[in-house]
Amino acid sequence: MASTSPGYGITIRVEGSPELQPVALITTTITNAGATITALDVVESLLEKVVIDVTCDTIDADHAQEIHDALSAHDGLTVRKVSDRTFLLHLGGKIEVTSKVPLKTRDDLSRAYTPGVARISQAIVDDPSDVRRLTMKRNTVAVVTDGSAVLGLGNIGPAAALPVMEGKAALFKRFANVDAWPVCLDTQDVDEIVRTVQLIAPVYGGINLEDISAPRCFEVERRLRELLDIPVFHDDQHGTAIVVLAALRNALKLVKKDMSKVKIIMSGAGAAGTAIARLLVLSGATNIIAFDKDGVISKDSQSEDPMRDWFIENSNKANFKGNIHEALAGADIFIGVSAPNVLKEADIASMAAGSIVFALANPDPEIDPVIARKYAAVVATGRSDHPNQINNVLAFPGIFRGLLDANAHKITDKLLVAAAEAIADCVSPSQLNTSFIVPSVFDPNVVIQVAAAVKKSV
Amino acid sequence: MASTSPGYGITIRVEGSPELQPVALITTTITNAGATITALDVVESLLEKVVIDVTCDTIDADHAQEIHDALSAHDGLTVRKVSDRTFLLHLGGKIEVTSKVPLKTRDDLSRAYTPGVARISQAIVDDPSDVRRLTMKRNTVAVVTDGSAVLGLGNIGPAAALPVMEGKAALFKRFANVDAWPVCLDTQDVDEIVRTVQLIAPVYGGINLEDISAPRCFEVERRLRELLDIPVFHDDQHGTAIVVLAALRNALKLVKKDMSKVKIIMSGAGAAGTAIARLLVLSGATNIIAFDKDGVISKDSQSEDPMRDWFIENSNKANFKGNIHEALAGADIFIGVSAPNVLKEADIASMAAGSIVFALANPDPEIDPVIARKYAAVVATGRSDHPNQINNVLAFPGIFRGLLDANAHKITDKLLVAAAEAIADCVSPSQLNTSFIVPSVFDPNVVIQVAAAVKKSV
Repeated sequence: MASTSPGYGITIRVEGSPELQPVALITTTITNAGATITALDVVESLLEKVVIDVTCDTIDADHAQEIHDALSAHDGLTVRKVSDRTFLLHLGGKIEVTSKVPLKTRDDLSRAYTPGVARISQAIVDDPSDVRRLTMKRNTVAVVTDGSAVLGLGNIGPAAALPVMEGKAALFKRFANVDAWPVCLDTQDVDEIVRTVQLIAPVYGGINLEDISAPRCFEVERRLRELLDIPVFHDDQHGTAIVVLAALRNALKLVKKDMSKVKIIMSGAGAAGTAIARLLVLSGATNIIAFDKDGVISKDSQSEDPMRDWFIENSNKANFKGNIHEALAGADIFIGVSAPNVLKEADIASMAAGSIVFALANPDPEIDPVIARKYAAVVATGRSDHPNQINNVLAFPGIFRGLLDANAHKITDKLLVAAAEAIADCVSPSQLNTSFIVPSVFDPNVVIQVAAAVKKSV
Repeated sequence: MASTSPGYGITIRVEGSPELQPVALITTTITNAGATITALDVVESLLEKVVIDVTCDTIDADHAQEIHDALSAHDGLTVRKVSDRTFLLHLGGKIEVTSKVPLKTRDDLSRAYTPGVARISQAIVDDPSDVRRLTMKRNTVAVVTDGSAVLGLGNIGPAAALPVMEGKAALFKRFANVDAWPVCLDTQDVDEIVRTVQLIAPVYGGINLEDISAPRCFEVERRLRELLDIPVFHDDQHGTAIVVLAALRNALKLVKKDMSKVKIIMSGAGAAGTAIARLLVLSGATNIIAFDKDGVISKDSQSEDPMRDWFIENSNKANFKGNIHEALAGADIFIGVSAPNVLKEADIASMAAGSIVFALANPDPEIDPVIARKYAAVVATGRSDHPNQINNVLAFPGIFRGLLDANAHKITDKLLVAAAEAIADCVSPSQLNTSFIVPSVFDPNVVIQVAAAVKKSV
């Protein structure tokens, strides 16, 4: 049976008469219907009725309806209300602007606003570099999207992308105390995206590009990096690549293999795939074969964009022409950033001993990790309900914390690798095992170490 | 002697030996040097020395140096440090982004971010109007400037304008719980400004244009109002006009005159002047004569822009051709939004009995209000150190609170007048007197009444 998820958490308010033993009846009904109860509160307890709030995780939206119906089927039980916890959380948005300065008296206003603020503006006129000291630019990051490649939903546009960008901003604050603000652009024209970000840049210390589809995202990042004096970072590319590299470093330690000697098969040659492969090559990898939906990328592949060009020039040195199943025979590492069910059980079984499988397609990986674990030494996915979650949250908060604190202007490959090493090193030798190759996102040491590594490499 | 200002507040740390009676010596020295002491703390009290922090308002930056020197001139007193309170307040900026949702556990992340957030995005895809319910667009306003007309500093550009925009955003939150965010644009091209605001609009429920020079600001506002389905409001125009109208309504009650019968002389025909005059005419004014730096605006004036056109067509019906001093003879009302020292004492003396003088040039008004008060019945300025401060803070918070709550798309003249009436009516009949014609900005009833009036008129 499919598993329940907190993303489908609901709270049901049910009424029942006391003689029915409503608590037991309700919990049994809900559990039998396949939901996972996480909390129960008796809200009211009267002679004639008991009112109970039950919070549970469900499988999906239809499942919530099934549970409603299962409860209503009992005479004596009445469902008063079903609240969707995810929707409730989002009412009115997830972030807000807060003043850091007191505004209680006229004197406060005179300092924070007119006439006192004019002195601050004049100071920046006199010394433009003072904008970093005297304004929020010290700590702000724009989270920029056009809504063209959002999660598993694809091209949904700027308004529908906003909840994701708000979430990103909330994570930036929670993990690294960075003030991030959603910039959802009502255009998908590369020139307009680039020009708009350039025009809004005065307020920001860094730009995080998010959910912009390939190949346009490559050009957007490249051109903004040329134009701006603040760092520009496409998280879907580099964040993923950094965490993959960190995980791989630790996994290779466990299986006692060398990056320069392993055979790496990749599925997916888009934004994330290209960034991962580049970082692996920078870290010593010499033998990568990549597949996209058209098959293997080799010397003879048609070039469609600069990133596919990169694979053509830097991978598959032996010009392998087979399919992915053939390529996996004897391979040491599989990295997937593509689509569900690309691989079969036999593929994993055919890999070398001490194999490493990173099946990162979201929400459903290239292979069921439970199956992969029967054969591979180390298995990782993007899912939070399996060990070794490759989660970008391990990277982008600390990276921007470091960039802002260092007043950095540019992002270099050296910086990306340093960040990956810092993440990997947050797992101590005594902690490191095949089910723990990356630190927990809630480990407060991660941001500290990553920011420090970034500052050092700037 | 010029007056001290909290905008030039400083804190001085001074050390002295106890035998000197340092507290008395320090306070006398500082007071004699012309500063206003607002706080004093003995930080350390030892046998051999006393360390004292004195907070005081000074006249300007040079004055702080004079005070430093006056203290240092005493043997036995040592100035350890001088901190500028306004600058200290601004270190690192005045606003921040805060998460409204918990992010402590994996389950929290699953609801606020992936995978739960995907359901929210999908809901907006299915029903685009849900963006108002499920995202921050419900409560956000972009504070947009190009830095071309900032306070008394003029064209200082987007980076130097940022502290002012941060202050505006802090006021939006403090007074109306609106989430406002600075948008400082690195262009002064009208097409680019309009296009950029259009492209960033998905995140916002309203646009507040700020400190954009005339006449470009008129075209920017007009075009954005045509293009966007969210309200667009240039505060320098309409905010000022609304508060002026509110103040004038109350002042006219006090002098028992009728808007349709009074002779109004205006100095300044820019953004604020035009908006004020339009609102006065909408409220019944029939006799306005306006002056700018070239003299009176009459039927024979050259047209330079649509707003000057408006004055040419709607004011000075009798085609008066004299200068402002002549025009003020027998006039009932003077409104200045121009420059310092435009008027002389004799001008005010020559006005009608029960005259009303609003000298709003910032920071130095068209006439010293102390002088004007010798002759006029009611005097107002933009300054916080005189009664009747015409302060836009009375208008924009409540206006946007009302617009956002009403899910308004457009701003109408009816709305502006309703807001002005609401502000005026916050001064009760028993409170109304010649030194209290507008409510205090700290009166919490103002935002409530203005928002309610705006909602009703939408």
